[in-house]
Amino acid sequence: MQSHFIGGAQRTVRDLPIQHREVVRNGGERPLDMNGSYAVGQMYAMEYRLARPRSPLPVLLWHGGGMTGAQWESTPDGRQGWLWRLLEAGHDVVVCDAVERGRAGWAMFPEIYAEAPVFRSAEEAWQLFRIGHGAPSGDGVGESFVGQRFPHENFGALVRQMVPRWLGHEAMTMAAYDALLEQFGPCVVLGHSQGGGFAAHAAIRKPHLVRAVVGVEPTGMPVVQEGQQGQEGADAFAPASAIPHLAVWGDHFAHSPQWQKYRAQTDVYWQLLRRLGGRAEVLDLPAAGITGNSHFCMLDTNGDEVLGRVLAWLERLGR
Amino acid sequence: MQSHFIGGAQRTVRDLPIQHREVVRNGGERPLDMNGSYAVGQMYAMEYRLARPRSPLPVLLWHGGGMTGAQWESTPDGRQGWLWRLLEAGHDVVVCDAVERGRAGWAMFPEIYAEAPVFRSAEEAWQLFRIGHGAPSGDGVGESFVGQRFPHENFGALVRQMVPRWLGHEAMTMAAYDALLEQFGPCVVLGHSQGGGFAAHAAIRKPHLVRAVVGVEPTGMPVVQEGQQGQEGADAFAPASAIPHLAVWGDHFAHSPQWQKYRAQTDVYWQLLRRLGGRAEVLDLPAAGITGNSHFCMLDTNGDEVLGRVLAWLERLGR
Repeated sequence: MQSHFIGGAQRTVRDLPIQHREVVRNGGERPLDMNGSYAVGQMYAMEYRLARPRSPLPVLLWHGGGMTGAQWESTPDGRQGWLWRLLEAGHDVVVCDAVERGRAGWAMFPEIYAEAPVFRSAEEAWQLFRIGHGAPSGDGVGESFVGQRFPHENFGALVRQMVPRWLGHEAMTMAAYDALLEQFGPCVVLGHSQGGGFAAHAAIRKPHLVRAVVGVEPTGMPVVQEGQQGQEGADAFAPASAIPHLAVWGDHFAHSPQWQKYRAQTDVYWQLLRRLGGRAEVLDLPAAGITGNSHFCMLDTNGDEVLGRVLAWLERLGR
Repeated sequence: MQSHFIGGAQRTVRDLPIQHREVVRNGGERPLDMNGSYAVGQMYAMEYRLARPRSPLPVLLWHGGGMTGAQWESTPDGRQGWLWRLLEAGHDVVVCDAVERGRAGWAMFPEIYAEAPVFRSAEEAWQLFRIGHGAPSGDGVGESFVGQRFPHENFGALVRQMVPRWLGHEAMTMAAYDALLEQFGPCVVLGHSQGGGFAAHAAIRKPHLVRAVVGVEPTGMPVVQEGQQGQEGADAFAPASAIPHLAVWGDHFAHSPQWQKYRAQTDVYWQLLRRLGGRAEVLDLPAAGITGNSHFCMLDTNGDEVLGRVLAWLERLGR
């Protein structure tokens, strides 16, 4: 096991006023000059290597938008996360904190980042993650959907691990993921939500380093631009279409027009990959007889069962 | 191994304007309402449990001010950090990201936190961490002190892991450490820099849960207030004085009047503990024949040797 700080660039800040602050408790004031050089755009990665991996391909775990790699480690109700199940299945694993989240750190605004970040309230998370109706109360035990698999009594533990994020930083984040792939590829990329979209983009940008894409409730898929409908589009997406893609969807979509819209975006891109001869598959959990999953399948009480399906898919591919 | 989000409280934000933003790439604008409940003041902890620990006491690793728990995992030049050496030595280990840093997340300002955070430039770090004269150039290879043990060719890797922090959040941070101690104590607390100061405060606040304090270049020590010079001070600090304390100091203090001042703060508190009959010891590395260490002894090329001295001290105590 080794941790890494990957990618990024140096940026310089000038003309900030010098403050006089007590930086060390009880240590008295000292001049605090924040002008100078900063590392911007790097990410954090923890590399887990088995003594004898059964697969030659490490699995890279890419978290969702307002999250960190901690979402793969433990569930809100204290069970082991997918990280450990993947290691048990014989894969080396790399867990990431993407740019500006978790241990990757973040840069000052508006001097380096253009604007302020966005924050997700517990109430938005309760609805957006398709846990239940209305808003959570107290530690998050609101009215959850019937048959809900998310451990909603422990919703507060999910809220405690949410972090701020910035909109419009996709290029910077993707550049760090590129550097990650150069270091750890070829590999399987398993991404959740925003991380699932980044995984699909990675297959376009670094097709020689990505052997399979698994998007668990992925968002932010590549969009075919005007003029890419014909041969140009085929040229742009053909290398990615040679890489197997799997989308995994939970339950309760009927309650969320927003999610129906996001999901349709993946459907469109999957169709494009298939038109190009690609293997772009869908694991619709309710259709497969597994009901009640939230947006966070990996944290749900039946998370191991869901991962079992994903592992079976990878095994069929020989990954 | 299991990760945890510990402590904190719920805070509510009201009256923010609703934005209309593209939150999901290519997903179209949607209303973005950040009003609602947030978790504030929690910390992240990764718990490493051995199958057969040789010591009954876990070691809690508390990072420095603008850092995260990653500083214990790997060194800038890719060697294994103290985390792994402590596990090899037979201790269970808990690695923390303190409130507002790393995976602990942080809260919006000025709505929840009162003000903006502070950031540490590469140039300030180069001087404050006693790596060398002047400023680093390029990836950090400036003029380092003669005999410098910090892997200064990889200084950039240290800069990439620095994170913002807030001044004046000591009470909130200490409350989360209290909760951590309730969960994992009794234990040994090994803190670096700001984390070393927090460790000393922890021994006062939770003396029944702290069996030893190791401060590696600690800052922010408890200060004896007016009126605590006599019996009142003895009452306040006597429980802590029953706990062995060790301060570890690197080299190059002659170059830094600021550090001489910070160090004197620990000297004063150690003297108080000794007056109360306590065992407050100092490992002055140059005086012990180990020269050239920076503020980050655990990252220096002789970090294992430094930890060896700390482990020997713990062993002498029977910890």
